[in-house]
Amino acid sequence: MVAQLEYVQRAQTQQVQTENEVLIFTFDQLLLQRGGRLGPVTLAYETWGELNATGDNAILITHALTGSSHAHDPADPENPKAAWWNPLIGPGKYFDTSRYFVICANVIGGCAGSTGPSSKNPLTDRPFGMRFPVITIRDMVRAQHKLIKHLGVRRLAMVAGGSIGGQQALEWAVMYPQLVEKVAVIAASAAVSAQAISFNEVARQSIMADPAWLCGDYLPGHGPATGLSIARMLAMITYQSEESMEMRFSRNPVQREAATAPTFSPELGGRFDVENYLYYQGDQLARRFDANSYLYISRAMDLYDVSEGYASLEEALGRIRSQMIFVGIRSDFLFPASHVRWLADKVQMVGGNARYVELDSPHGHDAFLKEWDQLTEALRQF
Amino acid sequence: MVAQLEYVQRAQTQQVQTENEVLIFTFDQLLLQRGGRLGPVTLAYETWGELNATGDNAILITHALTGSSHAHDPADPENPKAAWWNPLIGPGKYFDTSRYFVICANVIGGCAGSTGPSSKNPLTDRPFGMRFPVITIRDMVRAQHKLIKHLGVRRLAMVAGGSIGGQQALEWAVMYPQLVEKVAVIAASAAVSAQAISFNEVARQSIMADPAWLCGDYLPGHGPATGLSIARMLAMITYQSEESMEMRFSRNPVQREAATAPTFSPELGGRFDVENYLYYQGDQLARRFDANSYLYISRAMDLYDVSEGYASLEEALGRIRSQMIFVGIRSDFLFPASHVRWLADKVQMVGGNARYVELDSPHGHDAFLKEWDQLTEALRQF
Repeated sequence: MVAQLEYVQRAQTQQVQTENEVLIFTFDQLLLQRGGRLGPVTLAYETWGELNATGDNAILITHALTGSSHAHDPADPENPKAAWWNPLIGPGKYFDTSRYFVICANVIGGCAGSTGPSSKNPLTDRPFGMRFPVITIRDMVRAQHKLIKHLGVRRLAMVAGGSIGGQQALEWAVMYPQLVEKVAVIAASAAVSAQAISFNEVARQSIMADPAWLCGDYLPGHGPATGLSIARMLAMITYQSEESMEMRFSRNPVQREAATAPTFSPELGGRFDVENYLYYQGDQLARRFDANSYLYISRAMDLYDVSEGYASLEEALGRIRSQMIFVGIRSDFLFPASHVRWLADKVQMVGGNARYVELDSPHGHDAFLKEWDQLTEALRQF
Repeated sequence: MVAQLEYVQRAQTQQVQTENEVLIFTFDQLLLQRGGRLGPVTLAYETWGELNATGDNAILITHALTGSSHAHDPADPENPKAAWWNPLIGPGKYFDTSRYFVICANVIGGCAGSTGPSSKNPLTDRPFGMRFPVITIRDMVRAQHKLIKHLGVRRLAMVAGGSIGGQQALEWAVMYPQLVEKVAVIAASAAVSAQAISFNEVARQSIMADPAWLCGDYLPGHGPATGLSIARMLAMITYQSEESMEMRFSRNPVQREAATAPTFSPELGGRFDVENYLYYQGDQLARRFDANSYLYISRAMDLYDVSEGYASLEEALGRIRSQMIFVGIRSDFLFPASHVRWLADKVQMVGGNARYVELDSPHGHDAFLKEWDQLTEALRQF
């Protein structure tokens, strides 16, 4: 809860500069897909643009594992570092805030204002930690559904997201077929592979092996930074590609000022630039992200299977009424392009309106946060 | 040293069954590529077959990261689990022990009898730990060179190995061009990629993050089992492929008796079979392998660049006089087939005798320990 408050305070500080506000919506409870209930549930969200009188010009943006509601920053709109999908959102951009009411909410399970493991458990008045229930992509989407109803949205013009944001977008199409006009599923598939589960599990084991994890009961600001850094180092490899890492780093020795290794450990024969980069990325995430949230959200990614609860994949996909675009990335090995294309084909085979576009990018999974021109062009094929 | 003794005892126990012996060769010192010297140096090795009178029928087999001298087990010759290259070695096999004198030695830095971080530092009478010097593939090869001279070998009929065993084989061709008739470089390249270095570094950080690591000064049998297990879990992903993991595990829930997770941690929504498999593999390695050896040998893999110390890659490869075969694996993403092929082309371009063969296997890097028929067929093209 402290972490949440700090985030909201920071966002409110930003508000002075950006005239954007992280808003809070709280509802009583959510029945969870894997059993149990969560409540009260808070969603932290941001909006840009205005909802029209008929309530049908809203676009929901769904974020990835370590993302937040801050997809756009009107005060610094050209800077991709100021907000994670900044170059796609704004007046005249693909997600045109002069025409659309654009919404982005932190997922449940997260640590950027929404209810997650770092929130206070109302039964104990202490942070949930690992007493937080298992949550799924479907739970995240059902919470978002409550939010858009609260906001007066009658029909979504679009839902769009990449990675587990893409899983959420797909789930919107299956769960609420009548509510969504268009859905963009970017770098996401019907269910992740054994390899992706494996990478996630190594990351989780790294977090839980850190003695500072304390079975999830660490104090705010005293979490398993070493374990979370190592988890992030691994994740960063899977977000890139052999090709892009070779272009950026090759076998160069460290170029810039040295970052701090998670373990402060001795180097064996010097430091490669790519190692220094991974240390930096690990350290950055450990400073801003909650380790337990990482466990829960990465698990939601593993558990997601669009066919769960249906007689077949075809039955699940057959529910879709939205116009779908699936965007794969040539060099993505976390959500291989072939899996994304396969899913698009499946939707078509059951009579859906689905198009597949592939980004010809060397940047791996992360291309959905980098290839602004290609992404815009792909999405314009809607 | 205790670990070493235990290994030698185990090997001697095996001897009763297998009539094979782990032998010991000790020499004064080795000047190291990255500076300093190591000494005295012990190599644990095994041999099969007889050296001929002219000393030119010897084959040196070089092992991979967690391998040992036990490449062949005459008492259980058809069982790949009894010895790591068993199906390729023996009377009438590709490495024909009725015609050749086959040698395999544990690398320096290792923990299966040769001098490594768990050996006693003669200056302190305690295990080296992280006071062990940085060693390289070239150092390993120079130690092997001393061994084969000691054994009376005048010319090697072949050097063959996969992974860092392949790096050693390549280094033999460059360092000792007059001494080696044929060299088989399997699933190895001129230097590993930034991505491979990254995977290794995450593994090393996992080991060093374990409080039981104690900066390398753990007592024998009380090493960082959790960290080493996590490192192994990650490595096992990189030794396979998305394709093979999908074939073997897909998204199945755990099938067999549950293995112990490195962290004994709570499961979030059940256990996938692939996770259980990785736990098992991690646990198995942690029981048999020294964590500091893992740090040093994986670093040797990263540091290896065949051109180091030469004016150019071409100059290094131009030294080669052996007949070379390079074997790539279609689905290998640790040492991509394209890198192996590129190296074979380079050797040809500088006038060398090099052939490239690709194994059409879904098993990723590990195919060099699985695809016996394809490997035999590939090597017969010599």
